[in-house]
Amino acid sequence: MEINPWYVTGLVEGEGSFLVSFSLREKLSVGIETRPSFSVSQHKRNLKVLEELNDYFGCGGIRFDSHDQTYKYEVRCLEDLVQKIIPHFEKYPLRVSKTNDYEIFKKICQSMKANLHLSVDGIKGIIESAYKMNNFGARRYTKDNLLRILRKMKV
Amino acid sequence: MEINPWYVTGLVEGEGSFLVSFSLREKLSVGIETRPSFSVSQHKRNLKVLEELNDYFGCGGIRFDSHDQTYKYEVRCLEDLVQKIIPHFEKYPLRVSKTNDYEIFKKICQSMKANLHLSVDGIKGIIESAYKMNNFGARRYTKDNLLRILRKMKV
Repeated sequence: MEINPWYVTGLVEGEGSFLVSFSLREKLSVGIETRPSFSVSQHKRNLKVLEELNDYFGCGGIRFDSHDQTYKYEVRCLEDLVQKIIPHFEKYPLRVSKTNDYEIFKKICQSMKANLHLSVDGIKGIIESAYKMNNFGARRYTKDNLLRILRKMKV
Repeated sequence: MEINPWYVTGLVEGEGSFLVSFSLREKLSVGIETRPSFSVSQHKRNLKVLEELNDYFGCGGIRFDSHDQTYKYEVRCLEDLVQKIIPHFEKYPLRVSKTNDYEIFKKICQSMKANLHLSVDGIKGIIESAYKMNNFGARRYTKDNLLRILRKMKV
């Protein structure tokens, strides 16, 4: 039986996550890499749910997350996020949870498509937005840390 | 926007639970009460998801579960389980996870509708089935405990 798109949205409403994290990368002119990711977690016994999601979206992959002992279906490729993940949620929107995260995530992905993350002003706006998302607890750097690094950049 | 039934199934696929637990009740002729429940857990920030489920099914209630610090939408009333919850999953079935639990749950609810849980032989079969479900970790009594109690009953 074919997977219904609303079923996918229901699954993500409960178990999905939209995250934008940052890494320090000296080789980049702004010194900071912007890393958006969409993921859905499940206990090992539900691994097949993730395989179905993987088939449905036709992108991303599944990995074991030793941190919380779950499996995660994850999409990190910007092209896939913009062309496959975001269009799904535009058509079959989340109802209540994560809608704020999703809207910010979408804007950041679109900014990245326009290469804004490669300029100091652009990435500054992205950082400000990303830290308005709910899941900032998982971040390695504080917003102030990142903004301090940017101030040293001359791009 | 009206809730799509497949969205509900997707949510339950990730976060739902079908459970049949047992309590010792001296006043019952078989000495054991059979307690089926359907529940969906969410973190407090997603409480609104549960309210939507509550509206969708038109039965059950929401409570805080101090054990795992989540909120749970829960349906325990047999009549509601048989007339509202089970028909949903017959029409919009779970795909991969919990399908085994759901099938056993459904059969037990149907057995209870036929009052099988009120006879020693009937509840014995129900106990045997319930302990084939995946979430037996949460149970207060082992299967052997319950069957030992039943052996003392003369009904």
